[in-house]
This record gives sequence, structure tokens and C-alpha cells, in this order.
Amino acid sequence: MNKHLLSAADLSAFDIRRVLDTARHLAKVTDRAIKKVPTLRGRTVCNLFFEDSTRTRISFELAAKRLSADVINFSARGSSLSKGESLKDTALTIEAMGVDAIVLRHGASGAAVRLAGWVQAHVVNAGDGTHEHPTQALLDLYTMRQHFPSLAGLRVAIVGDVLHSRVARSNVLALKTMGAEVTLVAPPTLLPPRVETWGVGIAYDLDAVLPKQDVVMLLRLQLERQTAGYLPTLREYARLYGLDARRLAAMPGHAIVMHPGPMNRGVEIAAEVADSIQRSVVTSQVANGISVRMALLYLLLGGPAVAEAEPAPAAGQAVGT
Amino acid sequence: MNKHLLSAADLSAFDIRRVLDTARHLAKVTDRAIKKVPTLRGRTVCNLFFEDSTRTRISFELAAKRLSADVINFSARGSSLSKGESLKDTALTIEAMGVDAIVLRHGASGAAVRLAGWVQAHVVNAGDGTHEHPTQALLDLYTMRQHFPSLAGLRVAIVGDVLHSRVARSNVLALKTMGAEVTLVAPPTLLPPRVETWGVGIAYDLDAVLPKQDVVMLLRLQLERQTAGYLPTLREYARLYGLDARRLAAMPGHAIVMHPGPMNRGVEIAAEVADSIQRSVVTSQVANGISVRMALLYLLLGGPAVAEAEPAPAAGQAVGT
Amino acid sequence: MNKHLLSAADLSAFDIRRVLDTARHLAKVTDRAIKKVPTLRGRTVCNLFFEDSTRTRISFELAAKRLSADVINFSARGSSLSKGESLKDTALTIEAMGVDAIVLRHGASGAAVRLAGWVQAHVVNAGDGTHEHPTQALLDLYTMRQHFPSLAGLRVAIVGDVLHSRVARSNVLALKTMGAEVTLVAPPTLLPPRVETWGVGIAYDLDAVLPKQDVVMLLRLQLERQTAGYLPTLREYARLYGLDARRLAAMPGHAIVMHPGPMNRGVEIAAEVADSIQRSVVTSQVANGISVRMALLYLLLGGPAVAEAEPAPAAGQAVGT
Repeated sequence: MNKHLLSAADLSAFDIRRVLDTARHLAKVTDRAIKKVPTLRGRTVCNLFFEDSTRTRISFELAAKRLSADVINFSARGSSLSKGESLKDTALTIEAMGVDAIVLRHGASGAAVRLAGWVQAHVVNAGDGTHEHPTQALLDLYTMRQHFPSLAGLRVAIVGDVLHSRVARSNVLALKTMGAEVTLVAPPTLLPPRVETWGVGIAYDLDAVLPKQDVVMLLRLQLERQTAGYLPTLREYARLYGLDARRLAAMPGHAIVMHPGPMNRGVEIAAEVADSIQRSVVTSQVANGISVRMALLYLLLGGPAVAEAEPAPAAGQAVGT
Repeated sequence: MNKHLLSAADLSAFDIRRVLDTARHLAKVTDRAIKKVPTLRGRTVCNLFFEDSTRTRISFELAAKRLSADVINFSARGSSLSKGESLKDTALTIEAMGVDAIVLRHGASGAAVRLAGWVQAHVVNAGDGTHEHPTQALLDLYTMRQHFPSLAGLRVAIVGDVLHSRVARSNVLALKTMGAEVTLVAPPTLLPPRVETWGVGIAYDLDAVLPKQDVVMLLRLQLERQTAGYLPTLREYARLYGLDARRLAAMPGHAIVMHPGPMNRGVEIAAEVADSIQRSVVTSQVANGISVRMALLYLLLGGPAVAEAEPAPAAGQAVGT
Repeated sequence: MNKHLLSAADLSAFDIRRVLDTARHLAKVTDRAIKKVPTLRGRTVCNLFFEDSTRTRISFELAAKRLSADVINFSARGSSLSKGESLKDTALTIEAMGVDAIVLRHGASGAAVRLAGWVQAHVVNAGDGTHEHPTQALLDLYTMRQHFPSLAGLRVAIVGDVLHSRVARSNVLALKTMGAEVTLVAPPTLLPPRVETWGVGIAYDLDAVLPKQDVVMLLRLQLERQTAGYLPTLREYARLYGLDARRLAAMPGHAIVMHPGPMNRGVEIAAEVADSIQRSVVTSQVANGISVRMALLYLLLGGPAVAEAEPAPAAGQAVGT
């Protein structure tokens, strides 16, 4: 495990297993009435968010609080950033205040890497531009592992606006590391340049792909892409790439539907699919986000790893100080 | 006690007494130097606010923290709601994160009822549109009980913009349940349709009503009502329905003045009346809001009730786990 | 020590030494892995911020949390203030909720003094208009004491927009109390009226002053001053009053560079000076801000003073309850 989590590319298969195994133990904390362990008491985690993302911010905040860390929320709106302060000065200021970990959400690709070059605190990339969102990939892999015995050989289709999606980039990296077979499905205008070098399958016809998948992961379509000329119309996009009940029926019976949220019902996912308790694991993804982020903060801020080969200890032991 | 608190109509006289009695015991926590008990340690309360209301949000936040719960503040501004996420998806996301109670403030009447249909967490209505604000009614009743031996037969005038007031609706329901005699005083344009079916007195002449009241509760006048044509001018409104020193003198010597805040000094209440230490109980209402919300969270999230007939235990016992 | 901290003028030399000595002991808490002591458990501190200042708000929030106090953040944006509520009603509301200390940032000079006249809670002025920012002065003095054996006789130049700077006002007051020799350096348009009565040196030529200083404190230049006619151009300002490498070389070898942040690199301070690890103490100022604010909250909310003449106790003893 590195000092920071900047990219899913930094994680070896061993690292990923360690995070997911630790998360499985820590999930037991959330299942208790008293959802709290003293593991990170007296540590401070700063959520440094330059883009609005309430759900990601709350997920990290709850993860930190369940480990008894103090949490500081720093939103760029209403901050001195609006007075022109640089990311570097902001980071040095926060670091000087004795923060142990900085969770960064930023609109610029590469922001987390730059931040890690300036500070001694642990940096967690919570989304940088169109680049990466590695904790989303970790929680997605955790969710897949809940449904399938192994990630190796798992057939995963990632559908939609791959061009602008940090979720897609991080998932492709982590899934390839674990040996999954990934297929990207999108109109040509929403695939990145040089995507053929990514080492994954590429497809334009969703219907041809669906019957062969174990997992179908839909990407959120930013509705402003249409006005920017990437799409003809939302209706046309939904017709070609939206997952509706007919397409759901074409998937294998065991296959699951994932979405990082928030969903555009009626665009990339039909409401009836979103609400399908049998097939959609969207709310599980959210719940697993807490456990995975708890595990990550725990491992980065100094906890010993929970070895995969060991017999599973009781939750109290696994995280006890 | 139901699982949720959505409307004052859901509360029986027994429920109301139970909340108020529990609040009286918990008020002792606030009187100590160390204003904290471990009762709800490890529980999470989410303030889900789609409308700005700092005072209500802070009141719930302090109530939860004094019981040692963790608090998550989710404001619709700066949230994915601005990206078009539905209330339902937001609620399911928050629920998936393991929140025990959701305190909802929303601009749409009925929002709390809908939320309660989607989630397993306890829902507390902290104001929905022009519909209800039941914890405000509970703290108002608590404040009245501090000054009068019984709510049964208490004469309460509610003055002002009843048409748009969730405070008025919840108070009417709770006061009627406890046997109080309520009179609504307002210009005809600010009374709801079919108000004659509410089972309360109606009056247009404040001066005629004041000498007979034990409690005069002034409603906040939203100043934008004037431009919407509900009022001739603010000055005219103040002349007819504002409580000034002359009218205060016409009230019985024991009668108290209430206001849910924030006050428009010089409109519904004269500054000298607002600042009258003898007669205005406005700051007591604020203080009591903490105790009543502590009681409510305590009762909803699983604490045993403090029986009314029992001898009063010490504060530590009353809330101990 | 008074009940409130409203102005640096209220602090005697004895008070200042007491705060700085207590801060030195509390700084040890921040140096530990578990940065937390139970000293103010069950106390509530409210950050009441009518102006955006994330760094000051976070500094107070961390200081309070490291002493185990509960913290409520009240920002005027999104508050009932936007509905026209007065500062007085807001303050009485917060006080009624049982808050022990109110940390106030407000755009109007004198706001903290007025607030202290209305409430029983301790009031800390975290910046009021162009008037004062006394905790900034205290952390600046703490930082100077880290580098120099005594504040008496220390030669301190404060450079820039003194006219609009609460930082300058509070520093002048506190430095004079401690016997330092202060020189204000600014263009005539950025000096306050009657500055000759302040009892400090005045200079217009930075280059003439620099070789004689122990400390050079640069003030942030609000960039909107230019359009308001106070400056010819930013480039001209930087040429005359900006601290660049050439000027840094003209300072004595032991002299330090201070800035309250956030810095306008290239205006009042060159980037290479801001980043000079040898000479710039800007990040130390930020770190010291936590310790000084911890000390202040500790002393105001009832802790016994750490006597200056006593042998230094272990950190645990110094702050133990």
C-alpha cells in the first residue's frame, strides 16, 4: 500500500484484496447498533472539495466518523479560493493545521498527484477532473465480489460516456489488475482517443454485448453533453444505450446492474431497472462505499492490514486499537 | 409513539405528554457544565435540508450531539440535487449509508410522508411546505406548560398568516389534542379555505380577542406576501395585526407572547414587545427546542419512555443507557 | 483575562504572556498521534461567520475539537439572516441554545463589541470589518517568540494596506503592549487618518526600512483596492511594496517574513519569497493559530491558567481536567 491513493493504477492485486478484505471486516461495524470504533480517535481527516459532491463527501465523512476521526469539511465555495488562493497555498495551510489525511475532489485532472507532491499528509483522490476516482472503483469491485466468487474472468460491460468518466478509467484499471474482462460500450463520440491501447474490448452495439455480461455498469450521462454536440438527443441516446426492461431481460439471469449515481432515470437507466430489487445493486454500492473508505482510511493512517489468509477475526479485534 | 414524526396529528395526548416529560428530564443535561450524555453514541442523524433554516438545523444538530450521536448535514444547495437527482434517490442513498434518522426540511407539502414511504430510517418532519412543523408545536406546548399548570382549557390566539403557516397547522392539531381553546386571528385573505372545519375559533379583530387569551402566538409574516397581493401594505398589516405595547397592555397580566422566529420587528411584533423580558418567551422557545428535539430523537431511536406517573429520576438515570 | 476577547487593546502584557505560554503547552497535543484532550468535553463553541473565511473558521473548529468541544458552524449564507434577521436576534437564538462561546466574524467594525453586550456566552472576535482580528495578533506574537528571545525591543515592519487591515491594527496594539518597535510601511493612500497618533513609526520607503527589521509582516492586498483608486496599478504596487528576492537579501540574516494569508503571490510577496523555507514562517503561523486558539478557548471557558513562573508540566498535566 502506498502512502497515498491517487490512481487505481497504483494498486496491485494484493493491495486491492487487502482493502476489500479489510472493508469486509469493517462492514460489521456498520451493522451494529453502535456504529463506531475508536481506531482513529484524535486523527483529523479533511474533505477538500472543489466540486460539489455531497454523496461522496458524506460517504468519506461517515467513514471517518465511524472510526472516531475528526472531520473538517472544506468546500471551495465560500472559501478563500474565491479570493484567488492557489491549491498549493490551500494545501499547505491545511497541512500546517495538523491534518492527517486530505480527501481531494477537484475539477482538474491530475490535481491529486500535484497535491501529494506538496504535503506530508496522506492524499486520497476522490475524483480529479475526467481522470480518476479510485475509491469508486474499489467499492465497485467490493460490490462485484459480493455477487461473484472471483473477479478474475468476470465479464464487465461499462456503458456510456467513457470519454468524460473518471469512474470508467479507475474501474478499467482496477478490473484489469484483478483479471476481469472489460468491454466498453459507447457511441464513437464518447470514447476517448487511443482507447484501443487500454487493453479492453470496445463495442458500439449494446444489444450485442448484453447477453455475455456478468456485470453491466452504466455511467452517468452529464446532460450538458448534448448541447456540447456529443449526442444527437437524449431520447436517441436512451434508445441506443439506455438500459430498459427489455434489455435487462436479455442479460444473463445472474447478471447485476451497477451505477455510480446519481442516476438519470429515463436516460441511461429506465426507472423500472433502477428500482429492480433483484438486479440493481445501486444501493449496495452506496453502502459498500462507507466500508471501503473506512478500510482505506484505516490502512493509510497506520492500521495493520487484515491478512487475507488469516481466519476472520471478530470485528472488534480486526479494527481494535 | 409511531416510528416517524410526520404530523402533529399522529401524536396522541399520551405521546405528547411523553415527549414533554422526557424533554423536561433531558433539559437538565443542558443545564450542566458538561452538556452531553452517551445515550445515542454510534447512531447517525442526517439533517436533510432542502430549504435554508439554520436555526432549525442547528437545534437538531445540537440535540443530537448532546446525546452523542453523529450528525451529517446535507444541504440541497451544493448537492447533487442541483444535478436533478430526485428526493427518492437522495433518500435511498442516505439510507444506504446507515443513517438511523433523517430530519427533513423540504419546500413541498407532504415530502416527509413520501420520504417515510421509501426508507427504513426514522423520519422527522422539520417543516414541509405550508403543511406542518410538528417539533415546533411540541416545543411551543413545552413552553406553555412551563407557564401554565395545564394545557386543557388554555386559551391560545394564533395571529397572522395562517394560510401559509406550517407552525399554525401543527400547533392547532397538537393544542386541540391537549384540549386547549385556539382562536385564529388573521385578515380573511390569510386564512386557509375551509378553516371553519378546523374546530377552532376565527376572528378578524385582534383587539377584541386579546383580553381573553393566556397565550398570544404571533406568526412570521413572509414579507413577499405583500407583493403577492395578500396584504395592502406592511404598515397596514402592522396597524391591524401587529402586537405593540398598547396591545400588550390589553392582554391579561399572566399572558405570554410567543413567536417561532425569526421575528420581523416592527411588522408582526414591535421591538419593545420582542424585547420584553416579562412577557415574551421567545428565547425560552429556542432553548426548549433543544430539549424537545433531544427527547424526540431519544424516544424514536429506541430509548425507553420516562413514565409520567413515576417519581422524577435524576437526569443521569433518566437518560442513561 | 476578560470574559471576552474583542480587541487586542483589552489584553495586558500579563494576559498575552498567559495565552502564549498556555499555547506552548497545548501545542504538544497537536504533536501527538492522538491530537485530542478531553478538557472541554460537553462544551459548545459556535462559529458565527457573516463573512467567508474558511481558514479562520477551520482553525477555530480544529482548536475546539482538539479540546473535545462540540462545534456548530453558522454561516450567514444559507441562514435566516438572508431573511432579514438581525445580528441581535441571531445571537440571542444561539445563546438560548446553550452555546458556551461564540466566535464571530463580521463585516462591520464593532460587531463583536455589540454582540458581547447582548449575550452571556464568551465572545471571541475573529475579525470585525477593518477594525480588529486579535487572535491573528496573538498567533503572530507566538510565532515571533519562537524565533526571538523577547518581544520587547523587537523591530517589526508591517507593510501594505494598513488602512483596511484589521490584522495591522491588532498587531500594532499587541506589539506595543509587549514593547516591540513597530514601523508601518505603506503608500500614503493606504495609511489610516490620524495614524501619527498610533505611537509607531511611519515610512513610505520600504527599501530604507528593511535593513533594520527583525520581522517583516506583509499585509494581504485586496485586489479590488485598485479599481477603487487606492493604487495606480498592481505592478506599480509590487514594485514599490512587494517583497521580492532582492529585498529579502537586504534584510538582516536573522529576520523573518510573515503573512496572515492567503497570499497574493507576485503582488505583496514574490513566489520565491513565499516559498523560502529559511525565511518565511507563513506555515508556522497557520500551525500556531491552532495552538493559540486552543489556549484562548481553554482560558476563556474556565481552565486555570498555566503560570509563567511554574516549571513546565507535561502536556497531559497542563491541560488535564
